[in-house]
Amino acid sequence: MTERNLQIVLARRPTAAVTEEDFRIVEAPVPEPGESQFLVRNLYLSLDPYMRGRMSDAKSYAKPVELGGVMVGAAVGEVLASRHAKFKPGDKVEGAFGWQLYALSDGKGVRKIAGRGVPLSAYLGVIGMPGVTAYIGLLDIGQPKPGETVVVSAASGAVGGVVGQLAKIKGCRAVGIAGGPQKCRIVVEELGFDACVDYKAGRLAADLEGAVPKGVDVYFDNVSGEIADEVLRRMNPFSRIPFCGSISEYQRPEPRGLRNIRSLLVNRIKLQGFIVWDHLNGWPAALADLERWVAEGRIKYRETIAEGLRNAPAAFIGMLSGKNVGKQVVKLA
Amino acid sequence: MTERNLQIVLARRPTAAVTEEDFRIVEAPVPEPGESQFLVRNLYLSLDPYMRGRMSDAKSYAKPVELGGVMVGAAVGEVLASRHAKFKPGDKVEGAFGWQLYALSDGKGVRKIAGRGVPLSAYLGVIGMPGVTAYIGLLDIGQPKPGETVVVSAASGAVGGVVGQLAKIKGCRAVGIAGGPQKCRIVVEELGFDACVDYKAGRLAADLEGAVPKGVDVYFDNVSGEIADEVLRRMNPFSRIPFCGSISEYQRPEPRGLRNIRSLLVNRIKLQGFIVWDHLNGWPAALADLERWVAEGRIKYRETIAEGLRNAPAAFIGMLSGKNVGKQVVKLA
Repeated sequence: MTERNLQIVLARRPTAAVTEEDFRIVEAPVPEPGESQFLVRNLYLSLDPYMRGRMSDAKSYAKPVELGGVMVGAAVGEVLASRHAKFKPGDKVEGAFGWQLYALSDGKGVRKIAGRGVPLSAYLGVIGMPGVTAYIGLLDIGQPKPGETVVVSAASGAVGGVVGQLAKIKGCRAVGIAGGPQKCRIVVEELGFDACVDYKAGRLAADLEGAVPKGVDVYFDNVSGEIADEVLRRMNPFSRIPFCGSISEYQRPEPRGLRNIRSLLVNRIKLQGFIVWDHLNGWPAALADLERWVAEGRIKYRETIAEGLRNAPAAFIGMLSGKNVGKQVVKLA
Repeated sequence: MTERNLQIVLARRPTAAVTEEDFRIVEAPVPEPGESQFLVRNLYLSLDPYMRGRMSDAKSYAKPVELGGVMVGAAVGEVLASRHAKFKPGDKVEGAFGWQLYALSDGKGVRKIAGRGVPLSAYLGVIGMPGVTAYIGLLDIGQPKPGETVVVSAASGAVGGVVGQLAKIKGCRAVGIAGGPQKCRIVVEELGFDACVDYKAGRLAADLEGAVPKGVDVYFDNVSGEIADEVLRRMNPFSRIPFCGSISEYQRPEPRGLRNIRSLLVNRIKLQGFIVWDHLNGWPAALADLERWVAEGRIKYRETIAEGLRNAPAAFIGMLSGKNVGKQVVKLA
């Protein structure tokens, strides 16, 4: 093979905001599959907020990326060569193939994609980890009941957009919080939420109050910070907070945290942090539901697509500050 | 009857620290029981942190005390006169009789005290609401398993002291956090905790680390603030936080909140605010267990006793700043 592999590696650990200098692009030979391995040509790379955590060596649920190591991440690709019994050239696959053009795999954690008329990139978003995160966080942890009000922050993001649509499927009022009128328009008009509050408009408290006339029963928190504190003011007794992410904190050197914890007490709120990888038993059913609902048009999604591996760092940094709409992917080929 | 009733009423709503000027003492006639009522002479008045919440008119789970209204609170007393079928003169009773010498009751929420060799005041603490709070919060919400580590703040208080002793009964390591060497000595030597960290000693992080070599599986939070953030650093994956109170916030005009919420996420912590009055079905079993364990000497308790109704405001203010050890009561007769 005359092609060279391109890889993006972690050059240094960011202490606050991520910059392009935290990454380095390197060339390497395209590897040959060994016994029980196969070689994948990545077609789409997924960019997700959790990757910010892997750049840090603070204690976490997963090991950090090593300095000089290839950035972790899911990708969809095509099997080019295989010495693995269950994967053959031409198979479309999704797995943790990393920020690179070519990857070797032993098949662990890799799923084959049937691709029934759904674009391949969707298997990184709505029918992938973000979709399952929405599904398990909202349904298993949030336990929404028909007629209740579900609020989700980062509502136009890969997870948030699915949360609101699942809430609608379950008979709830779905209210999004997103940054800017364009995102809010998409959340309501394309994704079908009942309302969306633009937190950048400077009227968060008043607009949120208007959007949740019966208070909030489930707050799916992707952002934490000021937005979470404002939602806490509207939470109903015995409400639930699936705590999925705190993207507002990721770029700060010191955390701001939650101030309105009194609401957690007086409203007897259950706040539960969760990681979708703890719930592997729930993935197959979630993915089957999501794939069916996407194919039926009941769940819609948006993507922001960057072109070329070299643009992955800039796209990642943009996503952390909310520049994307929907799932952020990088088209590699 | 020639006696006069003395009552302590709410004179104004505190905005931050409570002061004696927020209360006023008034005289009133001793009331006569009407149809299906009885008259109680209060013997001991309970002082509890939740009362700070009732002085405020911020939205909460219970109505605030009205300006000019008698301060709410539990008391134990003796029935003096009765037109109620189930209570007769001489009965010892516990109920929400308020900060006053005499109270009328219709019997709702009042329990008769058998007093099997246990002092009457204990029915306001270890065999009362604080004991049940510890029992339900630790056992139902915290779900401790043998061999796990349970940490409780305000460990020498009425609730905290019971939490640690219940943790020991359940086969856990019990670690308290309390203010000052005297309280810590009582927590370990009298109440039988495995360790106690003095947060006033200026070495909270190091001392806590030494006290929880296997991390923290249940943190029973009575205080919130800096102490909770430090405990959050030591929480194990899938640990639980029964969130019972945030006494460190009660006296601040603006909340500090929780900063280390990242731990809630990466450790998949379940934090649940709870109010013991939501769990009335669990009270009889809890009180029966607690009464038996106290009688058997398996659960010990401390009290701080103020003398006379006129001293209740000062005792209450002292309790909010941690001057009491164990249950704070006021002896009225």
